[in-house]
Amino acid sequence: MSTKTKRFILPESEIPTRWYNVMADMPNKPMPPLNPATKQPLKASDLYPIFAEALADQEMNQTDPWIDIPDEVREQYKNYRCTPLVRAYGLEKALGTPAHIYFKNESVSPVGSHKLNSALAQAYYCKRQGVTNITTETGAGQWGAALSYAAKAFGLELAVYMVKISYEQKPYRRSIMQTFGAQVTASPSMSTKAGRKILTEHPNHQGSLGTAISEAIELAMSTPNCKYTLGSVLSHVTLHQTIIGLEAEKQMEMAGEYPDLIIGCFGGGSNFGGISFPFMRHTLREGRKTRYIAAEPDSCPKLTRGVFRYDFGDEAGYTPLLPMFTLGHNFAPANIHAGGLRYHGAGVIVSQLLKDKLMEAVDIPQLESFDAGCLFAQTEGIIPAPESCHAIAAAVREARKCTESGEPKVILFNLSGHGLIDMAAYDKYLAGDLVNYSLSDEQIKRNIGELDAIG
Amino acid sequence: MSTKTKRFILPESEIPTRWYNVMADMPNKPMPPLNPATKQPLKASDLYPIFAEALADQEMNQTDPWIDIPDEVREQYKNYRCTPLVRAYGLEKALGTPAHIYFKNESVSPVGSHKLNSALAQAYYCKRQGVTNITTETGAGQWGAALSYAAKAFGLELAVYMVKISYEQKPYRRSIMQTFGAQVTASPSMSTKAGRKILTEHPNHQGSLGTAISEAIELAMSTPNCKYTLGSVLSHVTLHQTIIGLEAEKQMEMAGEYPDLIIGCFGGGSNFGGISFPFMRHTLREGRKTRYIAAEPDSCPKLTRGVFRYDFGDEAGYTPLLPMFTLGHNFAPANIHAGGLRYHGAGVIVSQLLKDKLMEAVDIPQLESFDAGCLFAQTEGIIPAPESCHAIAAAVREARKCTESGEPKVILFNLSGHGLIDMAAYDKYLAGDLVNYSLSDEQIKRNIGELDAIG
Repeated sequence: MSTKTKRFILPESEIPTRWYNVMADMPNKPMPPLNPATKQPLKASDLYPIFAEALADQEMNQTDPWIDIPDEVREQYKNYRCTPLVRAYGLEKALGTPAHIYFKNESVSPVGSHKLNSALAQAYYCKRQGVTNITTETGAGQWGAALSYAAKAFGLELAVYMVKISYEQKPYRRSIMQTFGAQVTASPSMSTKAGRKILTEHPNHQGSLGTAISEAIELAMSTPNCKYTLGSVLSHVTLHQTIIGLEAEKQMEMAGEYPDLIIGCFGGGSNFGGISFPFMRHTLREGRKTRYIAAEPDSCPKLTRGVFRYDFGDEAGYTPLLPMFTLGHNFAPANIHAGGLRYHGAGVIVSQLLKDKLMEAVDIPQLESFDAGCLFAQTEGIIPAPESCHAIAAAVREARKCTESGEPKVILFNLSGHGLIDMAAYDKYLAGDLVNYSLSDEQIKRNIGELDAIG
Repeated sequence: MSTKTKRFILPESEIPTRWYNVMADMPNKPMPPLNPATKQPLKASDLYPIFAEALADQEMNQTDPWIDIPDEVREQYKNYRCTPLVRAYGLEKALGTPAHIYFKNESVSPVGSHKLNSALAQAYYCKRQGVTNITTETGAGQWGAALSYAAKAFGLELAVYMVKISYEQKPYRRSIMQTFGAQVTASPSMSTKAGRKILTEHPNHQGSLGTAISEAIELAMSTPNCKYTLGSVLSHVTLHQTIIGLEAEKQMEMAGEYPDLIIGCFGGGSNFGGISFPFMRHTLREGRKTRYIAAEPDSCPKLTRGVFRYDFGDEAGYTPLLPMFTLGHNFAPANIHAGGLRYHGAGVIVSQLLKDKLMEAVDIPQLESFDAGCLFAQTEGIIPAPESCHAIAAAVREARKCTESGEPKVILFNLSGHGLIDMAAYDKYLAGDLVNYSLSDEQIKRNIGELDAIG
């Protein structure tokens, strides 16, 4: 009987004390956000009305490679970190691959995903600044659940705008938020001007992430001592997620290996950046050859088929203009079950890295993602979130290449969350009721063409 | 800032290599199971037609204190064990108690509960004996989900009879089983004589655990190379669960403390025995003073208000007669959300220990259990399973006594599972729609009185 080690766990004392800011090491820094009216670059202080000051500063910090994790946040991390690094022997065997496949298991967080890593940091910085109330939006509810936990941990009142169709179709995540004490409102709602406007025009509107963002920002701006928070896309969110890769780096050392390929699923970029950037510093600083692969759904292919240009971060166009790979801020993604990947654009760091060919991207059809997810469940015993299935599918593709070539490559991917609250999606998959949503070049071109109006 | 340790984790090499069989150290051994027709004691070999031989032998083994964990099972344990021992600083603070509260977090298993510890062992022993198919029943689905995982891990075909009302009301757990490749049938079904009989008499029958057991046993008996498995109550199931307490013992040593009180919620006894018995050996062998408290729902109070006598393990009366604390095998528990605790009897080991006053029991009203569960969620960040809420409630009661007395007692409880798939229960609790189901002495007496027919 083998006594090989499957799971690598760091002692509490080895949990990293600093986040890694990849911007400091990038050859070409991300271009600045622009004021949409004046087209002038924004400074950190321009973001203070919306975000906690420390977070706005982190957002614009392109010089410091290391940011200390506050003790209070690290204490919270200790409730679920370090998360295991796991050698996927079962998956390797099923694929008959010589590749060594590892995954970082962020699904063990008490809310079931990596989102908590940034939620705790954002809640802490708001609290430290004397903020009493925070707002956010959530689609499928992963971010909302994580922030509800974090708000409770730091004693903040939280109001969440949840996309109406999810509010009704995913009552479990809504209940999780409420159990942690958050106020959850279906969006569009009558509680904001933005919501009232939409409901007046379209009384049966099912909601969208763009609308929910508008409502959450409006509430934050009109409430005393209140800030807005966001669960992905922005650079400070990705910064907090680098705890994943920093732990994984130490854990890969315990395993005596170093990854040839690093894979993360891709929505706004925070989980992909979280696992990749700490390793990427060795590429940027020492020229270490590693491939970094973002796995996006083929129904929302901003990295593989979008354009790099300034665009809005939200549908309504309330945010600053950001330099990003985008499908157009009014792109309406198909209703795939990986709700966390249904976003039109990519964060500014990843966009610049892709432009500079320091990373790659692949697009995965929905059925391939669930094929891979079920194989993973049956071989590794963890039912993955529909989002994470995209990373698994990309890892399976690469492992199969190794089977053909005979190369024993070391593959590391991030298991960003479990799918125990997404079983309705698996139900449909097993019943043969899921479909792919591929896009024609014409559809993509038309949507991107509308961006020309921004100028 | 404090740097106190919150979570204690054993390295993989420290995962126990043996289970602890408390029967070897009991002053009075459990009385034997009886053949219901002849009233003669059964031997292990009498159970071979239904259970794998190794499991039947473990069931009847009252002499060997230690049973080696097969390497194949230990390899599987390494996929999620050791589970963390956590110091509940947040809960302590909220209660203002001088008590030190620890919990063993079995919710981190990939199926979300402790059930996997025995599922893997049972599947392994079946496989080793050349069995190809196994059957079981499941109520809320925790056991079925765990066994589905285990069957896939060891390459067995699994058929699960799931109580019809749960099959329809808890589709997520059904989907989890199906994702792992199990066949799930709503019970009563037309696939067995037992099911057909009930459906003929009551076409709209919503199912019961008793009926599902009958169907699963019938299928196992009528299928070549097929065995039946059970998720609690039996002594071999509890044996496998002692991995919990054995780990906890080492982890408490890491924390530099020893528990004064050990608490588990109580359905059939496997999770309570799993956390308690390894510690209890120091009471039995060395006279160490520790209190062991089983927390049952007040709507199903077999330990606190039942009688000790021979009774059937199932509603239909197909099993051997077992010496147990019971409310009567036809007791119909109220429809509380802690489905795993809705069982009329207690396992034979716990029953004997309670009779000998080596342990205690408390009964917890449903609302008190959810009060405690929500407090725990908001202070420790983990939403507990409705079953586990009973253990938390009992721990909270004891911690409050410490607040009054000023005693810094060390309390250890088992968090048997998370509640992420039970959010409908929390929804109702938060909406004020849950009620208590207390029983009159008359109700209990009437039900137990019917047992006299057994003789």
